[in-house]
Amino acid sequence: MIAGVIGATGYAGAEVVRILAGHPEVEGLVLGSVSYEGERIENIYLNFQGKIAGLLEKPEQVVAASGVVFAALPHGAGEPYAKACMEKGIPFIDLSADFRFDGDEATFTAWYGKPYVHPELRRNAVYGLPELNRAAIKALAAKGPVIIGNPGCYPTGASLGIYPALAKGMAGDGPVIVDAASGVTGGGREPGRAYHFPECSDSVSPYKVGAHRHTPELSRVLGVMAGKPVPLIFTPHLAPMNRGILSTIYIPLDKAHRSGPASGAPRPPSSEAEGKLREIRDRYAAFYKDEPFIRVLPAGTAAATGRVRRSNFCDISVHLDTSGTTLIVVTAIDNMVKGAAGQAVQNMNILCGYPETAGLEAVPALF
Amino acid sequence: MIAGVIGATGYAGAEVVRILAGHPEVEGLVLGSVSYEGERIENIYLNFQGKIAGLLEKPEQVVAASGVVFAALPHGAGEPYAKACMEKGIPFIDLSADFRFDGDEATFTAWYGKPYVHPELRRNAVYGLPELNRAAIKALAAKGPVIIGNPGCYPTGASLGIYPALAKGMAGDGPVIVDAASGVTGGGREPGRAYHFPECSDSVSPYKVGAHRHTPELSRVLGVMAGKPVPLIFTPHLAPMNRGILSTIYIPLDKAHRSGPASGAPRPPSSEAEGKLREIRDRYAAFYKDEPFIRVLPAGTAAATGRVRRSNFCDISVHLDTSGTTLIVVTAIDNMVKGAAGQAVQNMNILCGYPETAGLEAVPALF
Amino acid sequence: MIAGVIGATGYAGAEVVRILAGHPEVEGLVLGSVSYEGERIENIYLNFQGKIAGLLEKPEQVVAASGVVFAALPHGAGEPYAKACMEKGIPFIDLSADFRFDGDEATFTAWYGKPYVHPELRRNAVYGLPELNRAAIKALAAKGPVIIGNPGCYPTGASLGIYPALAKGMAGDGPVIVDAASGVTGGGREPGRAYHFPECSDSVSPYKVGAHRHTPELSRVLGVMAGKPVPLIFTPHLAPMNRGILSTIYIPLDKAHRSGPASGAPRPPSSEAEGKLREIRDRYAAFYKDEPFIRVLPAGTAAATGRVRRSNFCDISVHLDTSGTTLIVVTAIDNMVKGAAGQAVQNMNILCGYPETAGLEAVPALF
Amino acid sequence: MIAGVIGATGYAGAEVVRILAGHPEVEGLVLGSVSYEGERIENIYLNFQGKIAGLLEKPEQVVAASGVVFAALPHGAGEPYAKACMEKGIPFIDLSADFRFDGDEATFTAWYGKPYVHPELRRNAVYGLPELNRAAIKALAAKGPVIIGNPGCYPTGASLGIYPALAKGMAGDGPVIVDAASGVTGGGREPGRAYHFPECSDSVSPYKVGAHRHTPELSRVLGVMAGKPVPLIFTPHLAPMNRGILSTIYIPLDKAHRSGPASGAPRPPSSEAEGKLREIRDRYAAFYKDEPFIRVLPAGTAAATGRVRRSNFCDISVHLDTSGTTLIVVTAIDNMVKGAAGQAVQNMNILCGYPETAGLEAVPALF
Repeated sequence: MIAGVIGATGYAGAEVVRILAGHPEVEGLVLGSVSYEGERIENIYLNFQGKIAGLLEKPEQVVAASGVVFAALPHGAGEPYAKACMEKGIPFIDLSADFRFDGDEATFTAWYGKPYVHPELRRNAVYGLPELNRAAIKALAAKGPVIIGNPGCYPTGASLGIYPALAKGMAGDGPVIVDAASGVTGGGREPGRAYHFPECSDSVSPYKVGAHRHTPELSRVLGVMAGKPVPLIFTPHLAPMNRGILSTIYIPLDKAHRSGPASGAPRPPSSEAEGKLREIRDRYAAFYKDEPFIRVLPAGTAAATGRVRRSNFCDISVHLDTSGTTLIVVTAIDNMVKGAAGQAVQNMNILCGYPETAGLEAVPALF
Repeated sequence: MIAGVIGATGYAGAEVVRILAGHPEVEGLVLGSVSYEGERIENIYLNFQGKIAGLLEKPEQVVAASGVVFAALPHGAGEPYAKACMEKGIPFIDLSADFRFDGDEATFTAWYGKPYVHPELRRNAVYGLPELNRAAIKALAAKGPVIIGNPGCYPTGASLGIYPALAKGMAGDGPVIVDAASGVTGGGREPGRAYHFPECSDSVSPYKVGAHRHTPELSRVLGVMAGKPVPLIFTPHLAPMNRGILSTIYIPLDKAHRSGPASGAPRPPSSEAEGKLREIRDRYAAFYKDEPFIRVLPAGTAAATGRVRRSNFCDISVHLDTSGTTLIVVTAIDNMVKGAAGQAVQNMNILCGYPETAGLEAVPALF
Repeated sequence: MIAGVIGATGYAGAEVVRILAGHPEVEGLVLGSVSYEGERIENIYLNFQGKIAGLLEKPEQVVAASGVVFAALPHGAGEPYAKACMEKGIPFIDLSADFRFDGDEATFTAWYGKPYVHPELRRNAVYGLPELNRAAIKALAAKGPVIIGNPGCYPTGASLGIYPALAKGMAGDGPVIVDAASGVTGGGREPGRAYHFPECSDSVSPYKVGAHRHTPELSRVLGVMAGKPVPLIFTPHLAPMNRGILSTIYIPLDKAHRSGPASGAPRPPSSEAEGKLREIRDRYAAFYKDEPFIRVLPAGTAAATGRVRRSNFCDISVHLDTSGTTLIVVTAIDNMVKGAAGQAVQNMNILCGYPETAGLEAVPALF
Repeated sequence: MIAGVIGATGYAGAEVVRILAGHPEVEGLVLGSVSYEGERIENIYLNFQGKIAGLLEKPEQVVAASGVVFAALPHGAGEPYAKACMEKGIPFIDLSADFRFDGDEATFTAWYGKPYVHPELRRNAVYGLPELNRAAIKALAAKGPVIIGNPGCYPTGASLGIYPALAKGMAGDGPVIVDAASGVTGGGREPGRAYHFPECSDSVSPYKVGAHRHTPELSRVLGVMAGKPVPLIFTPHLAPMNRGILSTIYIPLDKAHRSGPASGAPRPPSSEAEGKLREIRDRYAAFYKDEPFIRVLPAGTAAATGRVRRSNFCDISVHLDTSGTTLIVVTAIDNMVKGAAGQAVQNMNILCGYPETAGLEAVPALF
């Protein structure tokens, strides 16, 4: 397979390149860039020297030369190439938000400020969260070329932590709250004040509170998972680290799953609460038992971004609050891998019939 | 005034020393340590060379030589010195949890695993959160020597963000959720795996989920602020930074203060929501207008720990979630200053009749 | 005294503002900016909220309203204001390189690519390294208004570590090598790829090897210190920290001061070498015994940037290599304080007859 | 091949495990630990969950079950297992210093404070720097089982930067100076004050100046490279990053290779100096052209630790000082990979006849 990457010089695109370079089924790479056309990727990313060598070409040339195309472009810029891929009959895996909302153009437009360029392309598109949509992806692929709307980094880490609670009827009424912290690579390659080392190192801060574009995307996914609307509150933060998203998720428990009444003072850890928690943890583990990239962590441990770095894993730890009424689920992903490039490759593997873990076998290091 | 510091070699104690060294009313320092008695503080903290010179003495000698005593000792270890100070008739400012629960020994014992040593000392004790208890502190001081139960770092940052909502009737039913991240100095001076650079740098992780001892303390303070029990969920995290606690707080709004119904999809920012938010922000600003260490930030900005570093400020930004039903308050403090040593000095200033900002005038730098 | 700061929104300028705000002799500040004229400093630096409030004015207005003017402008941009200050008869303290080369316009031009704007101003200028030039600064000030060429950050940290060896005849033949690492604030406030968090965090790299503009400045200062040319090699590095410069300096020892022959295998630590080192260390300590901002550290310890953070100290530790032929001196400064704004205020203190430590009394914290 | 790892729970041992887990020729792993015998590696390193599962056994069991043994033990502890491997006839790859000094027990004892346990084992031992000793390693392996004295992290990064200058007669008289900075993983897994996050983050400091044990090892390697003793000065630093060693190396040039006289003021960059530098760079590139893990970087760039992270590469950039008399070579390695575990696997590949890059193909990411 020859794989093409358009937008190869951005962080997400370069990460796709890095992963594909080690993919056993990928025989060649064709790289595209609008800003750096004619330059060489290994001179822009010196870390690639000696491993990856590639001239940056026009996006059209990438489509022409490839059997599958990844695009990591600004929202709205990739639709023409998606169209070209559909016409050519090859998959298009899109890391922007363009294909994450299916036919719901109104929501896309309300949050991204622009209409769809080619609305009809959504007939070929599917939201690429394999743990939710693997069957749908395969079904669509059986019918013709597919566009993957590769999920946003926050919606990936958050929804995977909430899915079992929704699917298994553990969640009660009230909003689900997602409080998440991202590493600075989430801001992309372009320097800016918020990502300037002296302004973001040694500090934690929220941003776009009540206004982040991943809110409607996550809301939409949760609705699919629950089969009904799920009230959602989402707050992103910037943390002084390179990679990773930690999502701490508060899910009101259904009465049957609580270990105590909501009222009253906080209670110290008890064996009763531990027992209730063990049950829930076991249900999470059972729910994900066949998923190659989900690790439900042992009791007594907590997810940490440092332990999934550069891997496609989503680590999940489950906890109870001191009143026993709220499930606290913590997930950790690498925002650049499971949150972007790795999940994109996972989608390629599904579309192309490769083993789903191909190219994604790296053992995460602790540091 | 001669000020004594027992437990001067721990991080919190050394921070009290650092601040007192620049206090205009403090003429001398007497330093105490059990572990390092006979050594010199400037050889343990080389950063003090040329500025602070002090032999570390026995705690008893500190009490004997001082007009006010600060203690930064393990929970349970300071009560004898508190007793000695009361007998001598001088204030005792305690940075442990020993005096944060007043007469509620049952809660203290349930969470800290030990009984009070001298229960009767609580008659002289008051919880030292000046923004809540300034009048009570002064009233108690008018009657005799006072023990200050200096608040925990997390309860300080969280409660200051919730207080106006509770006091002004903005909060509706449902639990208040506090999702907080602390710098690594919060773990103290003793090395341990969790604070070993390769294991905590470049990573974010929660700890003691549903089990942290600051939960009952914060619950108690919120109950006082509201005049009734407040359901509370609290999750602490460790972030790769030295100083600071960022608390992101979710407060369900009373119906009168909402800008929309709970149900329905997330709505993008609107002028109606902005107007509603402006009202709430103004009420926060009005509530704290005479407080020297609270900064309610301008609309459109968000609190960041990096901007309060080494100051006694608590920065507060107020936000609304996308459904308009939940108030999101973010506070930033320096965990070692407003969260520990600075607040202790603020309490000393109140007790001794000094200007409340004496010794705490430092302008925070951005980095 | 009313102090003016032109270029107040850059990192160095803002640091001057922060320090002056706590200076006991400064009654008021007038702030100037070309890029942000008409805006308010506390809205650009939110950390200043509640402590410093100031409208940013035109540079000319700053000169008109002030009794002393600091300028933190790009090289070449400040000369007109220096001229205006001289005409008005007030001191001008310049943080650019414009006045660091005295009459040696050729060297300035060769490295900075532009001629002097008003060459005659050098008659009023002096290189503001107080430990070297205190008497010269005072002498010039006795004759009229003075321009201070405030030293560069690297030359400050390096030259202070070399001065005693040169002045006391300890240095032998061969080049002095300065290998230095700076925090990222040294790159200034403007975002750029080199200072983008994901590209500089968790990494160390040299830059401008054999080409940094501080080389001729440092060479010049060493020549003055030695009374003859001193061969110099200087390599700067970027380290993932906010503040600080660590300079590791290799000085070939004069034969009389060596503890062994150059040839032969490395020798493990010996009491003979320790004795020789003690002598050298004592000479360093004696040399600087009256300097308020130099700390020659105790034997057995090493300078670290973390222990001078936000202070005007220059910490110095002295060591010998394993052959006993080379003195290794390590100095640590805060690049923004002793390396820029703090030293500028120190120079103001000298010029104005204030205590030299006024406004610079902060005790450095360990973290 | 079944590979055994003794000392598998330390950082270096765990890194060997991580790399071997992805090695195409390694069919199974046997893990040994003295401190954690009976526990499971994936519970100590949660990052291994789902990828590596292994009971920690006694070292003797590891030797018995393996076809090649790696040992990452304290100095002096591994000799019995080396002996057992020789008796069994299988390779022993030792990451301690025990086998780095060949028959020179005197130097080992002077610096490590203990004699050899089984001196005769040195007949089977070779210093495992493949770029220097590949032929020697193969020759010894042709005769029987081999012990690899795997090089120290600092000697690896430094010697690879100096080798071409020594071998090609570019170096003149005078000491070679190596100024190096290591990430904190170099201190190992055990927490200690020096590696406690609040004490080492945001700070740079040297340590063991004139006393580090890697000095005699590096001196010895340089002597072999030059065919004569090379005067050496070496200073290690701790930098606030996880992985990596940057070595900035000052090599006095032979007269034929200088671009100017030693005396005189620093000269700005010139085309003459650039030409001279280009020649030297080309010689470095030619010298290493067949080495799979050495990257001589393009002119105008500088080595950075961040670009070799988690790879076995040694990046090299070459520069000239402003006087043209000293070659400045900068090398970057990952201290845990090329500086320890990766080089150990590279040695295994050579010993076992596998492709030298097997298991070491990872493309380094930028972050």
